[in-house]
Amino acid sequence: MTHGLHLLLELNGCPFEVLNDEAAVRVALRDAATAAGATWLGEVSHAFDPAGVTAIGLLAQSHISIHTWPEIGYAAVDVFTCGDPTMPEAACNHLIRTLRSSTHSLVRVPRAIGPSNDKVSEQQRN
Amino acid sequence: MTHGLHLLLELNGCPFEVLNDEAAVRVALRDAATAAGATWLGEVSHAFDPAGVTAIGLLAQSHISIHTWPEIGYAAVDVFTCGDPTMPEAACNHLIRTLRSSTHSLVRVPRAIGPSNDKVSEQQRN
Repeated sequence: MTHGLHLLLELNGCPFEVLNDEAAVRVALRDAATAAGATWLGEVSHAFDPAGVTAIGLLAQSHISIHTWPEIGYAAVDVFTCGDPTMPEAACNHLIRTLRSSTHSLVRVPRAIGPSNDKVSEQQRN
Repeated sequence: MTHGLHLLLELNGCPFEVLNDEAAVRVALRDAATAAGATWLGEVSHAFDPAGVTAIGLLAQSHISIHTWPEIGYAAVDVFTCGDPTMPEAACNHLIRTLRSSTHSLVRVPRAIGPSNDKVSEQQRN
């Protein structure tokens, strides 16, 4: 059994114009993947009316995503990597800087890739 | 401040041929989003050589993804929803059934959308 790591990053205090620029958000996402040493396979994005961007990059190592709420200066990021050695925290650090977040919080959730000892189980992380 | 919910689902014991069928995995993902009452905005997927599929659906409510390792009968799923009322557990249940998983585990991670009381913080969920 190998392991994966799923990082959930909340960014707050980001400028409206940064979070509402679909092209810039796509570039930031791709550069974040590069910073993590991940291999980019494809992407899809969408700009909401009146504001907000959502974008996902497909990685050989899994995925990276961002969803923005420019009107409250907030963006939700996740970086899921497994298999090849990567540095997902570097992707997070790149986005913290590039999107000019003033405060953030990061949660790391280790994921078991393949059969583990868990049977049917459910849990909540608060 | 509104709230989001990020579900991390591990599927084990799935048949090889189910997890290695890119077209079928894409359909399963889209149907799972429909089951959750979410709005589909776009998708991107990739088939690995010799085996494995990765696919992501962009939702008006955030995203849904799946990464499969057919050789060990395993798939990693995440469903992140926020904003409009959705039923992300219904998406998980659809994938558990459609991908014919014999065992699974599900972790729910609530996410704060917008400024919260957390300053710069990092934590690990084991």
